[in-house]
Amino acid sequence: MGKVEIVLNSLPMSGGDGPNSYSKNSHLQRRTTSLLKETIDKLILEKLNAKTLISDSNTFHIADLGCATGPNTFFLVDDIIKSVETSLRKSNSSKPEFLVFFNDLPHNDFNTLFTSLPQDRSYFAVGVPGSFYGRVLPQSSVHMVVTVGATHWLSSVPKEVLDKSSKAWNKGKVHYSNAAKEVVKAYRDQFGRDMEKFLEARAKEIVSGGLLVVGMCGIPKGMPFSNLADSIMYKSMADVLTQMQSQGLISEEHVDTFNIPIYSASPEEVTVLVERNGCFTVESMELMDPTAWRLKRPMNVEDVRHWMVCIKATMGSLFINHFGEHLLDDVFDRLTAKLVGLTEKIESSYREEVMLFFALQRK
Amino acid sequence: MGKVEIVLNSLPMSGGDGPNSYSKNSHLQRRTTSLLKETIDKLILEKLNAKTLISDSNTFHIADLGCATGPNTFFLVDDIIKSVETSLRKSNSSKPEFLVFFNDLPHNDFNTLFTSLPQDRSYFAVGVPGSFYGRVLPQSSVHMVVTVGATHWLSSVPKEVLDKSSKAWNKGKVHYSNAAKEVVKAYRDQFGRDMEKFLEARAKEIVSGGLLVVGMCGIPKGMPFSNLADSIMYKSMADVLTQMQSQGLISEEHVDTFNIPIYSASPEEVTVLVERNGCFTVESMELMDPTAWRLKRPMNVEDVRHWMVCIKATMGSLFINHFGEHLLDDVFDRLTAKLVGLTEKIESSYREEVMLFFALQRK
Repeated sequence: MGKVEIVLNSLPMSGGDGPNSYSKNSHLQRRTTSLLKETIDKLILEKLNAKTLISDSNTFHIADLGCATGPNTFFLVDDIIKSVETSLRKSNSSKPEFLVFFNDLPHNDFNTLFTSLPQDRSYFAVGVPGSFYGRVLPQSSVHMVVTVGATHWLSSVPKEVLDKSSKAWNKGKVHYSNAAKEVVKAYRDQFGRDMEKFLEARAKEIVSGGLLVVGMCGIPKGMPFSNLADSIMYKSMADVLTQMQSQGLISEEHVDTFNIPIYSASPEEVTVLVERNGCFTVESMELMDPTAWRLKRPMNVEDVRHWMVCIKATMGSLFINHFGEHLLDDVFDRLTAKLVGLTEKIESSYREEVMLFFALQRK
Repeated sequence: MGKVEIVLNSLPMSGGDGPNSYSKNSHLQRRTTSLLKETIDKLILEKLNAKTLISDSNTFHIADLGCATGPNTFFLVDDIIKSVETSLRKSNSSKPEFLVFFNDLPHNDFNTLFTSLPQDRSYFAVGVPGSFYGRVLPQSSVHMVVTVGATHWLSSVPKEVLDKSSKAWNKGKVHYSNAAKEVVKAYRDQFGRDMEKFLEARAKEIVSGGLLVVGMCGIPKGMPFSNLADSIMYKSMADVLTQMQSQGLISEEHVDTFNIPIYSASPEEVTVLVERNGCFTVESMELMDPTAWRLKRPMNVEDVRHWMVCIKATMGSLFINHFGEHLLDDVFDRLTAKLVGLTEKIESSYREEVMLFFALQRK
């Protein structure tokens, strides 16, 4: 099995609906979805000509790429449907039917997704197994595609950072944060190749006039990742793994080959990639502040615990795949303990405009 | 939770791909699929105007309703795609894209289905959770619907057979085979209502000119079910349950309320239902002989064991839902032992034209 496959298999969020599952621990993602509600509503009303798009079939097709197991995807879809219905009412159109494609990797827990679909939903629901870095749907088959919190996940760890003979060999670190410039470049290049494939596939799948809406990890142009609060988490992760290595719990090679394939993009670099693709117009490209939601009080131990439970639900399978299931709790217990002592440093980090939102329209 | 829901939840085939799973024990269904290959190919070439149907989108949409976890559904879909491609080549059309809707109940093991999808498949695959006795797809969204080995499963046990005060109260039996005429009528009426809903939903989903192909349990008009080999199995099942009741392993009420919601239809009664629906023309309506495959030697112990493993994979969840998982193996061990002593009786039963095949075209 090649590297790409290994990473692809490890990426899905934690399945089921137990206490450590993604479905129970994705409040951060829910906040992002809420934050986008108003923006998406405005886009649909102002940019999407729903009446013309569905004139043939009277069925509106929505896809959520990287939907995980719910429930956030259900809220997002409900919001979109309400906006499209409003738009159609305004143009005196008859009520359409809705088909929603819920996409994620084949190893995502679709059983949990399907059994937790809202009983009173107003749409036909289908699941689409496959990587969104390739085609997952037929040509011109969808009117609106959304993907929230998914496209910062690279298709694989850049191969250079795993290569001992490369200048990008990322020994002792788990991310490009605080790493050599060659490592940063390897991640950036990988993101560029992935986003190129992502846009190519969507250009084929989305009808002319359809919308592509993306919310993902972002960063202001030119800002080093080490300014961000997440860099403290990645540094602490590396420290925990090194500590566990020194205690003989994991091997040096395992630590050195562990990298988290997440990349935070700037609006400017995505704009370049969209222009290079050439099939979309940019309707919106902005950084947003997800911390506007945060409580106006100092971060406490419970906040850190809650944060780590969410991170464990999203990144857990990556650790399990690399180190084995038996070490997962130990890693996260140590990480939580470490971060509890770093709350002041986290709070003084840059945490404002770290969500990139963009909306493209298929030409 | 109402009766309907209980039965719907219990219907899915056994999940996973372990030794007792449906995916490893559905050879009988595979035989049925093979038997239909030639007939379906002929239908597509002679009746389906694929070129006209897909002229707008150049995408051909197929649905397999009641697909279970594979792999039979993959063979069936491959055969259909090859036939459609042949048909399109003959009309000098460009190669289309294919979208396949794999449908089954929400509790079906879609995770196994999705992870076992052929890697080299030539179609986009989506999963559709929902009962095919209601709408599962948008209006006019599919060109060809197949369902093999699924529509003999009723949406629920007819409520009269569970009603102590009814003449159709089916005490001590598990099926309408050898039962009072009121029980037979209750099953027949339930099938009529279910098939009515099935045809109504498909009439909305299938485009004009599209095909609906069904393979299910059948029986010649007027033949009592007790003539069929399966009646010996149902009688033995009832005997096993009564025995276990007398040994205090299960309660009388549990035995009396256990009924297998499977109905074998005659071509004539389906024809009446199709005509009443009015949206389809009958292109084919025939009984087929699945036993043409059978070895020309007496049935032996291994044959019975193999048969029971298949039955366990398809009906197992029904037993688990009603009696609990701990009794499943015991029930099937006793049943197998009983049937091993009845091979001559089974062989002298009617086993020829017990598969009903019909093909309808949407007007």
